[in-house]
This record gives sequence, C-alpha cells and structure tokens, in this order.
Amino acid sequence: MAVYTDVSEPQLSAFLEAYDLGTLLSYKGIAEGVENSNFLLRTTGGTFILTLYEKRVARGDLPFFVGLMLHLASRGLSCPLPVEARDRETLRDLAGRPAAVFTFLEGMWTRRPGVPECRDVGAALAGMHAAASDFSGTRPNALSVDAWRPLAESCGADADRVEPGLSAEIAAELDAIEAAWPQHLPTGVIHADLFPDNVFFLGGQLSGLIDFYFACNDILAYDLAICLCAWCFEADGAFNVTKGRAMIEAYRRVRPLSEVEIVALPILARGAAMRFLLTRLYDWLNVPDGSFVTKKDPKEYLRKSRFHRTVRSAADYGIEMDCP
Amino acid sequence: MAVYTDVSEPQLSAFLEAYDLGTLLSYKGIAEGVENSNFLLRTTGGTFILTLYEKRVARGDLPFFVGLMLHLASRGLSCPLPVEARDRETLRDLAGRPAAVFTFLEGMWTRRPGVPECRDVGAALAGMHAAASDFSGTRPNALSVDAWRPLAESCGADADRVEPGLSAEIAAELDAIEAAWPQHLPTGVIHADLFPDNVFFLGGQLSGLIDFYFACNDILAYDLAICLCAWCFEADGAFNVTKGRAMIEAYRRVRPLSEVEIVALPILARGAAMRFLLTRLYDWLNVPDGSFVTKKDPKEYLRKSRFHRTVRSAADYGIEMDCP
Repeated sequence: MAVYTDVSEPQLSAFLEAYDLGTLLSYKGIAEGVENSNFLLRTTGGTFILTLYEKRVARGDLPFFVGLMLHLASRGLSCPLPVEARDRETLRDLAGRPAAVFTFLEGMWTRRPGVPECRDVGAALAGMHAAASDFSGTRPNALSVDAWRPLAESCGADADRVEPGLSAEIAAELDAIEAAWPQHLPTGVIHADLFPDNVFFLGGQLSGLIDFYFACNDILAYDLAICLCAWCFEADGAFNVTKGRAMIEAYRRVRPLSEVEIVALPILARGAAMRFLLTRLYDWLNVPDGSFVTKKDPKEYLRKSRFHRTVRSAADYGIEMDCP
Repeated sequence: MAVYTDVSEPQLSAFLEAYDLGTLLSYKGIAEGVENSNFLLRTTGGTFILTLYEKRVARGDLPFFVGLMLHLASRGLSCPLPVEARDRETLRDLAGRPAAVFTFLEGMWTRRPGVPECRDVGAALAGMHAAASDFSGTRPNALSVDAWRPLAESCGADADRVEPGLSAEIAAELDAIEAAWPQHLPTGVIHADLFPDNVFFLGGQLSGLIDFYFACNDILAYDLAICLCAWCFEADGAFNVTKGRAMIEAYRRVRPLSEVEIVALPILARGAAMRFLLTRLYDWLNVPDGSFVTKKDPKEYLRKSRFHRTVRSAADYGIEMDCP
C-alpha cells in the first residue's frame, strides 16, 4: 500500500494539459503496488490510472515497460494501455517523477485462487509470451540466477536470524541451482512477477494482466515456474497438483512446451522459489519496520524451496509425461 | 493512508446483492483517511465509495453519522450520500466490520488553500450548520473542553520530550481555557474536523464536504474556530488575516454571528488549537512508529496555540468589529 509522492491539483491539471483527456474531476491515491505511486484518476474523458515512478524503478527501463504494454495491447492482450499525450509521448514528468497515464482495467484480483484461475493464468501467461515474441525491446533480468548469490551474500549470516542454519541451506541450494541451471531453453520477454494481485478476473473470466515492472528477457519456462510457485500452493504450504496440472496444460495449449523445457521445470521452480526467498529475506532484514513497504514473510518461500527440492520430475507438478 | 481490512471479491459480491447497484466491476483500496478503510468501488451501476468502519469509530455512533449525511444531502448540501440497500438500510456488515456504500463525490482537496478557498469554506460551514439545524440526531463531543485535561494528563511529563516545558505550558493554558470557556453560545451539529483534506473543489468551486466521523453537538462558532486554525495559517506559521477575514465574512453572510459569538472567537480558537495539539501529542507519544497511522507533528498546533494567546480580540482574525 503506497503513495510515496503526493500531487497537487494545479500540478496535475498542468500535466493533463498535454493530453486529450478533458478536465480533471478527481484523483485518489490507491493503496496497492509497492514500487510506485498510483492514483485513480477521473476526468471528463473517463477513468484512468496515473502512475508516478519511484526510485526503485530505473528511469532508463521505463521505455521498455511502457513500450511492452503498448505492444501487448496491440496484439490483443488485455493490459493497461499507456495513454499517449498529444505529442505521442507516453512518459512525462510530474511532481519530480517520471509519470504515465494508463487506461483503467476493470476486474479484481483473486485472494484465493482455485483451479479455474490457475488454468486461466497458465493460458494468459502463454498468451503473453506469444504476444511479446515480436517485441523489439530487451531488458536483462536483474534478478535472474546470476544475481542470487550476491543477494544471498549481502544477507550473510543475518539469514540465520530468520531460521538457524538458513544461510548454509541457501548456499548449498545455490550451488545446486547454479550447477544445473539450463543454458539453452527458449527465451523471450517474461512477466517475472505474475502473482495473484497482478491478474484481474471479472465475472469468472480473466480480464487482464497488470504490473509489468519486473518484465525482462529470460527463459520462458521460468515464468511458468514462477506462476507455479505463486498460484499452486495451498495456505498450509502443500503443493496442489490439480492446480499445477491445470496451469501447465492450459499454458501448453497456447504455447507448446518442448521436452527439454518440461525436464527443466523442477530446477526452474527451485530457482523461482530461491529468487522470491532471497528478495523477501533481503527486505525482511533491511527494510526498517516503520517503512511504507509491507514486508512479506521469507519463510513462505523457504517452504516452497524445500518442496521443489523433493520433486523428482515435472510429473510431480501434474504434467502428463510421455513414457520413455 | 489506510486499508486496514481487506475484502475478497466473493465477500463483496455477496454484500452487494443487498443493493440495486448492478454487478461488481472493480474495487481498489484508497490511500486516504486515517480512521476507516475506504475502497473506490465500480459497479455496472456507477462509481461509489465503500467504507468499512474500523475500531476507532464506535458502532453506536454510525447511525448518527450516516443519518446526518442523509439529512444534509436532503437539504441540498453536497456530501457523500449513503446508498440505501433494497431493505432501506444504509449500514450492514462486511468482512466483520460495519460497512456502508456512498455516492462518489467528484472534486479534489486543495493542498495549498488560498483566500478564495477560505471564503468558500466559511460559507459551506455556515451552510452545513444551517442545514443540520433541524436534524434530530445528537452526539456529544467526546473531544470537547471537558476531555482535554484528561488527555493532557494521560500524556503527562512525556510531553516534555516534544519540547521542554510543554506539559506545564499545556496545564497553564488549560487553566485559562477552562476558566473562560463560554457556556451559553448557540450550539448545534458541527463538523469538528473540516480540514483541507475534507473539502473538495472542482473547477475553482467548492464541490462538497466529506468525512463527518467527528461530527457532534457543540458550540457552532467553535467549528469556525477549528476552520480558522486549519485553513488560515501559512506554512511558516503566520496567521493570514486576509484568509481569516474572507472565511468569517463568508460564514456570516450565510449564518450571522451574534456579538457574544464574535467576542468568544479568540478563546474558542485557543480551545481548537489545544484540541488538535493534544490529540496529535497523544498519537505522537503513543502510536508505534511502524503503525499505518501517519503521525502529524504536534508542534504545528503548539505554534497555533501560542498565536491565539496573543490575540486581543476577534479583530485580529480579520473580523470587522463595530466601534463600541
């Protein structure tokens, strides 16, 4: 929940003069999103989202994010569409921050995803991968396998404050992941953060994807592994294989998975669990308690990491494996 | 900025079945308001505000607040209108909290009020007092003069952590306020918290008042004194007599002030400054730093309190006094 940068009405009215959106009627800070300040904006031209990009998002990455959303929308994917000003630009400055206006996407994120939601997310993720396949922008994944060891080392022995022995457990798991990380799988633009709060549903149908601010180029099947982590575990920590099967099969119907991708799923899932374990651990240890940033429990991803280590093959995620 | 209670889509959809508002399209927590959880709600029937009342608001007071807003709206005052469900009720339960739906009021609060805004607020405040004059509900002011001494004593010597000598200064000022507090001024329903963030403007016009959750029965001119405190000081701490004059004169054009009310304004303003000094001081000393509640600097109201003590008569607020 976050509005880091406030905006005054004269500032916002002056900003909107660059657009064909009519007259400002109201704007209210939204208590969602942890990286940026978001406002629900109403003008005589309609309802929009106004985003002010805060310091955690690199200014140089903004054209990639906004360009990707424009591209995906042009391919029929439902996502917030960056609104062009009269000069065709989608990024300008407001209150000392880069800012953009987006179309408002109806729908709600689901607090308790079931099998149908997991199935729809699998299809939507594959749809996004397909729609982005001819996008020209590129952005390296700053949080991929190469980044995990330095992140773990910056936490150091403090990790043991979360659970005794955790720093050694992470180091050993990183050894295993780095040794087995696949090198030649199909890559492309991935969402990299498609958690339930970034997927909207309306009337039982998936109505759109939001928050592309971790999007980057990386292994496509790794994005599916992230979704398996984010959607298919129950509150008690158990992996729900029915949800996993529904998600993977729906993904495959839109974008077929090769055998090497299927074989790699368990190690990709171990990587995905490690990535979220480490960023949560880092925030847990480093973000002051009084901060606006809501800290998430790193232990949730420690449990998921341990589950993935027990997986013998992608069959354990519910995938139908061909007999050898 | 606050959403204390989250709501799931199935909970909200079930809640909305009691209303004639159509189908749920979206809802987003709003990062405004410190007492309750507010969501901007969109249905096929329109845009609304959904409020969940948190523990700081007494459940028994809710019929007064909601009834007052219905009454004021029926008298033509622009404020959020509680939406009746099909059973004519305006209050029901959602996610374990009392909840209500309100019409959405367009407009924006002004971060830097000028003379025109102070004038408009004076007129709107008097209009509210007039519109509420035949409202049948009553609610004692839990934060009026009788409450200040116990509040000061609960802060005790800790006040000196904010500024050395503050607890003694408060005690002496309370002696003076209690001795001089007027007993026979006109009373009625007051807003009691009409700060800039509770007044919306649109296109240079005041478009409505919100947040009636401190409304109560008390001295009407005390409400004007609160507004003088809240609107007419500059960022450097100086009282702007032009703003004060504009506010008071606009108020008097709608609801004339008697001579005893005018004479009492300085002591009422000292009381108003003390009331906000004390609640801010209490929160400053008692609310944990990691809390969602944004703590406001009590020293702002200490400076205002000191200014009001220098005032010789209401003429110092810009009021035109008749010669004796």
